[in-house]
Amino acid sequence: MSSERMSVRYRIRCPSGAVEARAQALAIEQSIEMPPEAVRDARVRSEVVGQVQSIEPVRDAPGSFDVVLALAAETTGDEPGQLMNMLFGNCSLQPDVELIDLQLPPSMLAALPGPRFGIEGWRAASNAHGARRPLSCTALKPQGLAPEALAALAYEFARAGIDVIKDDHGIADQAAAPFAQRVPRVQAAIERANREKAQADGTLAGHRSVYAPSLSGGPRRLAAQLALLRDEGVAAALACPMILGVPVFVEQVRAEAGVPLLAHPALAGQARIAAPLLLGRLFRLFGADATIFPNWGGRFSYPRDDCLAIAAAARAPLGLHAPALPVPAGGMSVERVGEMLDDYGPDTMLLIGGNLLAAGDAMPARAAAFAARVARAFEACRH
Amino acid sequence: MSSERMSVRYRIRCPSGAVEARAQALAIEQSIEMPPEAVRDARVRSEVVGQVQSIEPVRDAPGSFDVVLALAAETTGDEPGQLMNMLFGNCSLQPDVELIDLQLPPSMLAALPGPRFGIEGWRAASNAHGARRPLSCTALKPQGLAPEALAALAYEFARAGIDVIKDDHGIADQAAAPFAQRVPRVQAAIERANREKAQADGTLAGHRSVYAPSLSGGPRRLAAQLALLRDEGVAAALACPMILGVPVFVEQVRAEAGVPLLAHPALAGQARIAAPLLLGRLFRLFGADATIFPNWGGRFSYPRDDCLAIAAAARAPLGLHAPALPVPAGGMSVERVGEMLDDYGPDTMLLIGGNLLAAGDAMPARAAAFAARVARAFEACRH
Repeated sequence: MSSERMSVRYRIRCPSGAVEARAQALAIEQSIEMPPEAVRDARVRSEVVGQVQSIEPVRDAPGSFDVVLALAAETTGDEPGQLMNMLFGNCSLQPDVELIDLQLPPSMLAALPGPRFGIEGWRAASNAHGARRPLSCTALKPQGLAPEALAALAYEFARAGIDVIKDDHGIADQAAAPFAQRVPRVQAAIERANREKAQADGTLAGHRSVYAPSLSGGPRRLAAQLALLRDEGVAAALACPMILGVPVFVEQVRAEAGVPLLAHPALAGQARIAAPLLLGRLFRLFGADATIFPNWGGRFSYPRDDCLAIAAAARAPLGLHAPALPVPAGGMSVERVGEMLDDYGPDTMLLIGGNLLAAGDAMPARAAAFAARVARAFEACRH
Repeated sequence: MSSERMSVRYRIRCPSGAVEARAQALAIEQSIEMPPEAVRDARVRSEVVGQVQSIEPVRDAPGSFDVVLALAAETTGDEPGQLMNMLFGNCSLQPDVELIDLQLPPSMLAALPGPRFGIEGWRAASNAHGARRPLSCTALKPQGLAPEALAALAYEFARAGIDVIKDDHGIADQAAAPFAQRVPRVQAAIERANREKAQADGTLAGHRSVYAPSLSGGPRRLAAQLALLRDEGVAAALACPMILGVPVFVEQVRAEAGVPLLAHPALAGQARIAAPLLLGRLFRLFGADATIFPNWGGRFSYPRDDCLAIAAAARAPLGLHAPALPVPAGGMSVERVGEMLDDYGPDTMLLIGGNLLAAGDAMPARAAAFAARVARAFEACRH
């Protein structure tokens, strides 16, 4: 055991006269959960009880304070679920508290899994090695379609040159398109399109589209899905860490998938955890190779600064961990591609779903325009 | 596939002129996630697309509306994680939406696992068969203590006659007290106390205290913990469904533990999901035999009505599912036992942790007073 500590930043709403006591109470809540004067063990008192490191009023926000706690690394047992518990387990029940930021000591940082493939892994999967270009992504939808209909859609997207074709996150293992029937058919359709592109001339010659099916359920069901993934040669996967559970995402999905993982934020937005920390840094530390988040101006209301901060957190230096690919999404349209590329740059995957399908018979053309626009972006800047 | 639907009640903050469009958008968000006019499949349009059932302004809350959606049962695939996804996956990312209530069609209700043991299972475990009495519960803490120290504490609690002795939810599988070393020692200490009570005269003759160790981690780690639980004859367990992940809680923990489960709300309070629904009804449907929640007037700010509603949801008729035991907690004291018993009645487990430890050398006496007070409550009313 070490006496290393992580620095955890919370934002508390509190009258200023009460903030020291409130910060102290939070340090207890997120460590020993009992009156500290009743702790008889000297080691626990010095090495385990949470400590208040600093309290600062938030500028321009009267009654809000940033409180930094030093929480003992040993309390997490180097297990990602327990890390979530120590960061925000009990105080998630206290509405005056938000979790804002986190600094991990190097040993904890190194012990967390991080992405296995990272941004370059996505480029390699789509056969876009070496080119520092953004990637395009779309979703098979709506849920309720039969496997054949989803496969037909996947074929069109792949022929259009979309890099990553994911299941809609609402598609799981339902009767309309069970995983075991859907995944082989969709994968076969994408492989057929890839073979046809390989024989083609022009910009799509050799382009490879990648399928990312949606993983769901408990450990037994996941094990069967992961086995099928390997058997069928599927080259990526989609998962919702907050629905599956962080420990399963790390211990089973990341450890056994063997392909780049696209994390979806379902059920994650409920949190009073700052989105750049949860979707950007923590999901990456748990093993996401790409992280989907709601871009501004779509169906969600995340502010632009938060969106850019999520992308920055996914890519920023973080120990020896590979960067993860930010994936802005949520009601995006082909018309916004230029603006999004300006904002997010080449290390990005743009996800457009419904807007392609809304083109009706013109879907293949709209999808091809989207894919080409993204694939050629920044060409002039490349060496 | 059936065309059955569940009725899901959300509360939306929205200008009244925009509420119909907002409700419609939510119905799309929580089903097909694409423009409905672009859906070509007739079956999907009629059976899968979410429908707005009703919109009602919330009394005395201008700008708030209760919107009931009819969402297709088939979209959940009868998988509890996917149920959470369809109820609140994407709209968790929309801060104007809260999930308030849920009505499931009988087939879905029957397909969800529910408690294996229920309230009577807890009484049977503590050898309080037949007596309709409340139960007492306390927590081993603080985290950071060695297994021997936790076992010594457990022995004192068991000798005092506490019914259920649980790990503090922050105790997981850390180096200070690894699960494999802690659980056999604590279990042995409690069994020794139980043997001594069996030989004693008076009110504790034959009383059995039960240990509920804290389960944590991913599927492999959980499998090892569950095996140890069985090998050691441990008679209960504690788990945090929102940290482990709902699918793992159901598919592995509930299916394989073979003992009553105490659900802890860590990370669950972050939700904009009404606490009576999540902690009371959903955790019960997922298999919790008891559900811990923050009582009013302690370290948490849940209003009294919400606390009573959580207890009511845990015990209310629900298809053929057994009732779960409500466990009010969070900074409770022995002084409040009478008031809590008046409010919650005999089908309740009272959890007091730090307040017992704060008694210092007088802890055994305070714990015994707590246990006796709870065990004898409502005696005069029994037949």
